[in-house]
Amino acid sequence: MNNLLVAQSGGPSAAINATLVGVLQGARISDRVDRVYGAKNGIEGVIKGNILDLNDLMKDPQALDILTYTPSSALGSCRYKMKDWKEDDRDYRNVIETFKKYEIKYFVYIGGNDSMDTVDKLSKYCMENDLDYYIIGAPKTIDNDLVLTDHSPGFGSAAKYIATTIAELERDISVYDIPAVTIVECMGRNAGWLTAAAALARVNGGPGPDLIYLCEKEFDDVKFIRDIKAKQAVKPGLLVVVSEGIKYKDGSYVSDSMSNGVVDIFGHKYLAGAARALENLVRKRIGCKVRSIELNLMQRAAAHIASETDITESVMLGQKAVNCAVNGETGRMAAIKRLSDEPYRVDFIAVPVSEVANHEKTVPLNWICPEGNDVTEEMMAYLRPLIIGETNVKYENGIPKHYRLIK
Amino acid sequence: MNNLLVAQSGGPSAAINATLVGVLQGARISDRVDRVYGAKNGIEGVIKGNILDLNDLMKDPQALDILTYTPSSALGSCRYKMKDWKEDDRDYRNVIETFKKYEIKYFVYIGGNDSMDTVDKLSKYCMENDLDYYIIGAPKTIDNDLVLTDHSPGFGSAAKYIATTIAELERDISVYDIPAVTIVECMGRNAGWLTAAAALARVNGGPGPDLIYLCEKEFDDVKFIRDIKAKQAVKPGLLVVVSEGIKYKDGSYVSDSMSNGVVDIFGHKYLAGAARALENLVRKRIGCKVRSIELNLMQRAAAHIASETDITESVMLGQKAVNCAVNGETGRMAAIKRLSDEPYRVDFIAVPVSEVANHEKTVPLNWICPEGNDVTEEMMAYLRPLIIGETNVKYENGIPKHYRLIK
Repeated sequence: MNNLLVAQSGGPSAAINATLVGVLQGARISDRVDRVYGAKNGIEGVIKGNILDLNDLMKDPQALDILTYTPSSALGSCRYKMKDWKEDDRDYRNVIETFKKYEIKYFVYIGGNDSMDTVDKLSKYCMENDLDYYIIGAPKTIDNDLVLTDHSPGFGSAAKYIATTIAELERDISVYDIPAVTIVECMGRNAGWLTAAAALARVNGGPGPDLIYLCEKEFDDVKFIRDIKAKQAVKPGLLVVVSEGIKYKDGSYVSDSMSNGVVDIFGHKYLAGAARALENLVRKRIGCKVRSIELNLMQRAAAHIASETDITESVMLGQKAVNCAVNGETGRMAAIKRLSDEPYRVDFIAVPVSEVANHEKTVPLNWICPEGNDVTEEMMAYLRPLIIGETNVKYENGIPKHYRLIK
Repeated sequence: MNNLLVAQSGGPSAAINATLVGVLQGARISDRVDRVYGAKNGIEGVIKGNILDLNDLMKDPQALDILTYTPSSALGSCRYKMKDWKEDDRDYRNVIETFKKYEIKYFVYIGGNDSMDTVDKLSKYCMENDLDYYIIGAPKTIDNDLVLTDHSPGFGSAAKYIATTIAELERDISVYDIPAVTIVECMGRNAGWLTAAAALARVNGGPGPDLIYLCEKEFDDVKFIRDIKAKQAVKPGLLVVVSEGIKYKDGSYVSDSMSNGVVDIFGHKYLAGAARALENLVRKRIGCKVRSIELNLMQRAAAHIASETDITESVMLGQKAVNCAVNGETGRMAAIKRLSDEPYRVDFIAVPVSEVANHEKTVPLNWICPEGNDVTEEMMAYLRPLIIGETNVKYENGIPKHYRLIK
């Protein structure tokens, strides 16, 4: 038997189940795959032998359709970094034991940076020990920080959620005639891609955010207050978007600027976000009405407003990963190569996972405007195609239908 | 000329523009209305004579279609409570001056409690001074706290956003195998309707929130921690939903419990939400992973996931308000009377606005379960029909198209 195992890892997204569906479809059409299994909670499930039979699911087109549009990781997830096998090979031996028990030949691991590290280590372990397994990564991260792929599955849907929400918030804050600042925080500790996506709220001519601060550029309180005051001279209601990970010149996080000073009645440090810290700053320095909003987990979970482009590509990358594995490739990651922005054209390729793992793709500084408070047209051209298209989400009783693999 | 004036007031919602569209449609089909005007920023615009001509818009079906699904108040809004005219009638005289200038005979005011107070005062002023104007209110509030109407326009859409988001967050938090508590805060200082809507995340069989605390019931830290521990014994990832306005036995807000104790480096009081306060409580008392999420303005702005039932009813109430005015009624509010839950049937009626203004409809205590941590089946039967149906939102370049009345 030549069976295939699939697992999901890292933070959930609106598109990671679409890639799982792509893996199941890829396995279904390949005559080199006999049965398909899923590991529960990522590589931890492989190590512990926590395995689910996915053959019935694979043959159920209606279930697959709903699963495609279900957010989060249907197989569960983990945050687990495998040790170097030369130091400790117990995890590796457990993985191989599971592979043998379920007659696995192909393993597709869907995830972000940590997962690609696992694919890299596991594939090298197998090659160096002459073990005949084919291990392929399929990318996933709303942060869009994986290298060697034009963008990552999950990002386009998160970007569409952010663009839509910012456009709606812009309408909301425009109604009053008094000075007010609304500061929205997007995910991203080191990469500002999601924050940049807020600029997409302007694609239909709306003003979108008034100011955008990405974590790649040094943040300066004085300049920030000056920017706000300059915009307030023109209109009363301002919408500001910042990355979770904006930092000062000395490398410290803006979010920590408050945590450091703020304690509760027990003297415990209070954990605040960047937007919260800036909310307090504006209240103190300007004194106008101010509110902070964290887009929080909704950024990665809002499958009801997923990008059709993203979902379609996510499925294709799952298929591509299987295609690589059954063709005898290992230690590679399925990836997207952009051919053109307009018309938007991409190729699905495979790249060496060793060059992906433990690297981080941040926003090029020349895609941020010189003033550091907005993005450039190059960034817009990159982002625009990624949010195009609405998905065929099925609603039942007024809310989207979700597929539950693990009850 | 017998002209009609319309204005919007209070916090924006996903449905208040649908009511504006209903008013325009109602005026269009009535042979008793000549021209239609809109006041900018609610009653303040009427007082100041800030008036827009809506006749072109009224005859543009495509613009009206987009406006129907555009969130927020297209005419702008205000928070303005008129004084008693016996004490100070300047505002009233200014209103009448605007009415005369634009030959207004009918005035429809779309809004919540404060706006109904304005309708009440203005209609009484006209009657007592023998002024021949017909002033009607059209309800709007996502809080659903207006009396004499089964529910309020905007609530169903906010409820659909909350139910969908909670269902998506439930999927998101289910992926890890470690104990974690996610606490979501919904709007509502005195009325827990929006928080109750989180229970709709269960309509398709999903578990939805594990615990729900409404502001109508006294909140108790000890009981809360006991509830969490009891649920944690069964599953690792918990989803808790609370009202912004949950209060302790002594009437103090849970949100204030933290604000009171927390100061920043300058000694300023820190403003936190109820969920933030409870996040800190769980961290201290239980010590597991914990996160708080505020659904914030998205609750009232997320028109992309509006309820078709809500939008349709909102349009009808705008039409009904015009219908009342042109039939010579004044000092009344268009309202919804529910005839049955299943099948869902309503009538559109008119109620005396004096009995609506300055009253507040909170959740009946017997619709909250005896333990105070969930809602009853009666609440579910009430809520279920309100989120049914998806709207025909038009997308362009990947985000919903919005209509901008005031640039």
